Amino acid sequence: MTRVVTLEQIKRAIDPARVIAALEDGFVAYSEGRAVVPPVGHLDFDDPPGDCHIKCGFISGDEHFVVKVATGFYRNPERGLSSSNGLMLVFSRKTGNPDAVLLDQGWLTDLRTAAAGAIAAKYLAPRGLEKIGIVGTGIQARLQLEWLGHVSECREAMVWGRNPEKAHLYRKDMASIGFTVALAPSIADLCDACNLIVTTTPARTPLIHSAEIRPGTHITAVGADGGGKQELEAELFRIADLRVVDSLAQCSKYGASSYALRAKLIDEEEFVELGRLIRCPELRRRNDRQITIADLTGVAVQDIRIARLVTESLA
Amino acid sequence: MTRVVTLEQIKRAIDPARVIAALEDGFVAYSEGRAVVPPVGHLDFDDPPGDCHIKCGFISGDEHFVVKVATGFYRNPERGLSSSNGLMLVFSRKTGNPDAVLLDQGWLTDLRTAAAGAIAAKYLAPRGLEKIGIVGTGIQARLQLEWLGHVSECREAMVWGRNPEKAHLYRKDMASIGFTVALAPSIADLCDACNLIVTTTPARTPLIHSAEIRPGTHITAVGADGGGKQELEAELFRIADLRVVDSLAQCSKYGASSYALRAKLIDEEEFVELGRLIRCPELRRRNDRQITIADLTGVAVQDIRIARLVTESLA
Repeated sequence: MTRVVTLEQIKRAIDPARVIAALEDGFVAYSEGRAVVPPVGHLDFDDPPGDCHIKCGFISGDEHFVVKVATGFYRNPERGLSSSNGLMLVFSRKTGNPDAVLLDQGWLTDLRTAAAGAIAAKYLAPRGLEKIGIVGTGIQARLQLEWLGHVSECREAMVWGRNPEKAHLYRKDMASIGFTVALAPSIADLCDACNLIVTTTPARTPLIHSAEIRPGTHITAVGADGGGKQELEAELFRIADLRVVDSLAQCSKYGASSYALRAKLIDEEEFVELGRLIRCPELRRRNDRQITIADLTGVAVQDIRIARLVTESLA
Repeated sequence: MTRVVTLEQIKRAIDPARVIAALEDGFVAYSEGRAVVPPVGHLDFDDPPGDCHIKCGFISGDEHFVVKVATGFYRNPERGLSSSNGLMLVFSRKTGNPDAVLLDQGWLTDLRTAAAGAIAAKYLAPRGLEKIGIVGTGIQARLQLEWLGHVSECREAMVWGRNPEKAHLYRKDMASIGFTVALAPSIADLCDACNLIVTTTPARTPLIHSAEIRPGTHITAVGADGGGKQELEAELFRIADLRVVDSLAQCSKYGASSYALRAKLIDEEEFVELGRLIRCPELRRRNDRQITIADLTGVAVQDIRIARLVTESLA
């Protein structure tokens, strides 16, 4: 028997507090070496350009393993379709039976990325958040702010995006879920007003510069999911007091951190994995003057944990 | 929109002649280098022992790409479950949408393996089949004989299996689909009576020996799907007049052929891929005295083609 779960059912099954707890558990398992995550499979397409990534894995002791297929076709918006799509499969580790097919259309990937941002903020944001700065106006810009609402009381935000129309729409949409969003004339203005900043863009030249960052600021970067993307100036990693990554293996290859590592501004030992930070309070922010960075590239344990959570919630 | 297709619907959609044509087309595409098939992903499990293989790929010019997840849990029969399970996913190559989820429980893999055996026999069996010899009594032993019925008029068969009870059951079951099956006292007797032989076992020491094979016999081996399995004596490849493989890359690693190659009884150039044989009549059997072998390890193009066929048949 295989249970087929629609996106509507998945959305109804999501409880933010449980998602955050499940992902924290996943990050800890990953950093403790209890996750088995083989290399990602991928297919590339021309005409139209697109790709497919296949991630799979399990966490030691789990009853299930998970296979995620994610597609990205970047001309889909021209047809009125989302560029990302895909599904997750949950198999029994005891019998190999496909217990559940989660037809999430890529939504769980967006969600677990946003939830990881919330977890980073939970452990790294300074006390007394003044304003949350969001760079970008897309789906992840929306979800990141929404999910920060699950770990913080702050409802004041500021947004910067290249396209003013989209920034206006962002402000309106975020108002509908309780956030007051100002439009930043520039990223420098945003950095000046905000002590929690999340960057969510596919930028290939740095948007955030070390000279503009106030003491006490936490910055989370979620845009770098592959080669060539860079939202944060490498120098930021040098001046930061705390540098957190979801996966040292991935971030050192293609995360925002990778540029600072290659420029030899910092060493690998100066990074802390999010899973270790969750486990050890002494590794976290020490005061409200420190500058902290979280570089999140997305790890398969997030998929493994969120797929399990959805399946269990529906059982 | 994703269409979810049950095993019952899949079974109803199968038309043997169309399956054979679709797979032939796949083998040709593979041998002509028109298939894109990345490395297989896999997960291994302890307690209970099991594995998961993830194959994906597409054929140049197709509108779809396919991801297949296959699981094998070898203690499942103790619980009354099949050891193999899995599903296939058919995605649009234009948008990345998961167009279909084929909940085939591994059945399409069994089917495409049997259909490949029929294709090998179609091009390699001698004229005037006297008796079909089947070594093994499992699911593939059944399906191979059934599918040979789609390319040959011969309904006389002989079976050999280690377990006499299972051989009796095999005879009974095959009678119900029109085959008269004799029980072979030994494999030597089977080789003596049959001029088409199919081996379907997970044997790790050779069952078929060159000294026992009559001139004019064709042998298809489908049991070697991974390291350590060997149904045919390596010497058989030396004395054969024609050696066919589904994939030279795979067969030279772990097929029945690999033992003959490693023992340097033959060179790689002495093999012909099935796709080339289908394309070029001059590469096929030349007379009814030749000994021919087909070593089939299973290739992703079979999955790609059968998944497309099922999806199109249901459209």
